[in-house]
Amino acid sequence: MVNRSALASNFHQMFLKSASFGAVGKGVSRVACSPEDGAVRDWFVSWLKTHDFQVIIDPIGNIFGLLEIAGSDAPFVLTGSHLDSQPNGGRFDGAYGVIASAQAALAIKYQVAAGRLTPKRNLCVVNWTNEEGARFQPSLLGSSVYAGLTNIADALAVTDGDGISVRSALEKIGYAGSGTPPRADKYIELHIECGPELEKTSNRIGVTQKWWGAIKLQVSVQGEQAHTGPTAMHKRKDALYAAGLLIAGVRELADRENADGIERLYTSVGRIEVEPNSPNVVPSSAKLFVELRSYEPEVLQKAELEFKALLQQVEEKTNLPITITDITARQAGKFDPALVKLAWEVAKSNNYPALAVATVAGHDAIPLAHMCQSVLVVTPSIAGICHHEDEFTSDTDLEAGLFVLTDMLVRLCEGEDR
Amino acid sequence: MVNRSALASNFHQMFLKSASFGAVGKGVSRVACSPEDGAVRDWFVSWLKTHDFQVIIDPIGNIFGLLEIAGSDAPFVLTGSHLDSQPNGGRFDGAYGVIASAQAALAIKYQVAAGRLTPKRNLCVVNWTNEEGARFQPSLLGSSVYAGLTNIADALAVTDGDGISVRSALEKIGYAGSGTPPRADKYIELHIECGPELEKTSNRIGVTQKWWGAIKLQVSVQGEQAHTGPTAMHKRKDALYAAGLLIAGVRELADRENADGIERLYTSVGRIEVEPNSPNVVPSSAKLFVELRSYEPEVLQKAELEFKALLQQVEEKTNLPITITDITARQAGKFDPALVKLAWEVAKSNNYPALAVATVAGHDAIPLAHMCQSVLVVTPSIAGICHHEDEFTSDTDLEAGLFVLTDMLVRLCEGEDR
Repeated sequence: MVNRSALASNFHQMFLKSASFGAVGKGVSRVACSPEDGAVRDWFVSWLKTHDFQVIIDPIGNIFGLLEIAGSDAPFVLTGSHLDSQPNGGRFDGAYGVIASAQAALAIKYQVAAGRLTPKRNLCVVNWTNEEGARFQPSLLGSSVYAGLTNIADALAVTDGDGISVRSALEKIGYAGSGTPPRADKYIELHIECGPELEKTSNRIGVTQKWWGAIKLQVSVQGEQAHTGPTAMHKRKDALYAAGLLIAGVRELADRENADGIERLYTSVGRIEVEPNSPNVVPSSAKLFVELRSYEPEVLQKAELEFKALLQQVEEKTNLPITITDITARQAGKFDPALVKLAWEVAKSNNYPALAVATVAGHDAIPLAHMCQSVLVVTPSIAGICHHEDEFTSDTDLEAGLFVLTDMLVRLCEGEDR
Repeated sequence: MVNRSALASNFHQMFLKSASFGAVGKGVSRVACSPEDGAVRDWFVSWLKTHDFQVIIDPIGNIFGLLEIAGSDAPFVLTGSHLDSQPNGGRFDGAYGVIASAQAALAIKYQVAAGRLTPKRNLCVVNWTNEEGARFQPSLLGSSVYAGLTNIADALAVTDGDGISVRSALEKIGYAGSGTPPRADKYIELHIECGPELEKTSNRIGVTQKWWGAIKLQVSVQGEQAHTGPTAMHKRKDALYAAGLLIAGVRELADRENADGIERLYTSVGRIEVEPNSPNVVPSSAKLFVELRSYEPEVLQKAELEFKALLQQVEEKTNLPITITDITARQAGKFDPALVKLAWEVAKSNNYPALAVATVAGHDAIPLAHMCQSVLVVTPSIAGICHHEDEFTSDTDLEAGLFVLTDMLVRLCEGEDR
């Protein structure tokens, strides 16, 4: 058996260190491929090498740390998450899963070395590139390329708001790799819940059964630059006015759908880009980043149609052309029932109160579920806060997740198959 | 009499040169205190010195070029406009008036030197700092300080979106002066109309009788950063949603007031700042730059009250605090009737078809009207386009304005008093 107090202590020490990269207030700002992301990656790779993991960087910059404990022909269990964060994000979102995976894998390696475990599967710890999608859209970029859902050339050509491509951003921090990672046989991800359910119900482990569908759209309004003083109101082609109507309309989609108090549909506009954005100039263009999310495919489909109808209404009202310049869709789906069952059993054997949950947020475990058995285990986020420096999970809850992850990896390494 | 063809030729040559500073497309980008603004200022000061104007830079960076043709005790006629522009603005807005004033003053100086004019007033050409208000709010900053409407310490402490103060921006381009400018006895400004009336009515000279009132507000919505995925809709404190309602509501103020087809009220939101402005983060704050304009004081007052009621409605609907962080008001007013009459007479004696107009846009002649007799003469803008690179005034119209300005200055230098 793994020494739990040593495992917990090593984890806390390493996690604390991870939060020093890009530290801002109580949280971190470690946007994908930023200098801060580069620094935490360098430190993580150095840790992997120090502990004799074989390090592979693939072309999208994913970092793989391999432990071939069962020999080169044995299948790999992948486990990990992401080290990138939102601007002024929390220190748990992503980093928790990467550090816990690293320490769990190292502990298992020592068990094998001590002859207390005869492995039938290899282990691989992974840090996925650009999970957050803050700087580069779409999110889940590294794991989607790995899972074959996104073409590598398309992914590298994605640009940020300043026109810098993923390719050149990766080159700049030294993570435009050329390695070939192992194929995942199974994938386990540990993450904070980013929602209030576990805390509300006094559970410590959440076993994620399914994920919500999401449609993410970029919408552009074309107006015409003019002076806000002398230009007659009926002659204005005000792109920001159309954007205001759209922002309000996107919210109303959800308010209408959820009028009975059951929140089947989430909608948001998180980002807006306006040109020339000068106080006394009628805006010539506005770009909106819109999200629609639901666990019910029919609700999401309906919301997409209603959103398109909204675009048409606003076009007619303002007489300005509005175009959808980008759209990505994630279908709702279910994690692997066998791995879900394993998570339940392990939580139960540890006497942790556990809850079946669904995830609204995207996680790397979702693209992985398209190529192998995949599951997502979560621990409580106080008050459901996430993407904010106040994000918090207690040490005891962090340890609960760490122990469940370790026990699951041990069972899979021992050859358990489902 | 001034040699008109030489005057016109000198003007066109100098105007063409001015448009090379910060040239972008057909227009210029010469935002106040930018490197481009610094370059055009250096060139202009060098021109003034070459032609024996005495140059004074005051603490807000206004550039004065003095010709003491009537002796040090004689009063000064000021004439000028501004060399700063909007981002991607036109090449006429502002620069036209500065260059025309410089050439008109120089021509009069030669008349005096040749003994053809015995002046009773001195001349002073002026370039006002930050007329546009694109980078630093409020607009009309340099002329407002000169006219005693704005405190110099407050003006220097104004910061741009990056937190850079007017003081340090002026220091950076070398225009944080310490000179004391002459007090204006009268002020004449020549400008393009920035509106369609002259072209529509086939007039070549507009004599501006009055200006519209304007209220400019900065409004901040305080939300709370959260994940757009798992955060329940009813828990979101979405600052951009409130901003969207405000943008739409600001437009509706005008639509309601102008429902009978007479445009008494102009409203706009030209600029928005959103934090953190990430596609999958609920925005934590949004700042809007709002303008309300009317020629009727009662309409403007009513619009301000309705805007404040709108803030309250949106606060109640979204449950987010909204605060007015800055408000500047410009009362509607009238230019000096005696100078208006002079402009009419001069236009008539030149056989230029002329029209009485009102200005909706702010101009430096408005603050000046609070300290001395002041008037604004305008020439046609094709299709009323302004604050856009397509801004255009024909050479013939530019010359018409130049000749009217010159004749008015001659009459005032000769001692005409009204």
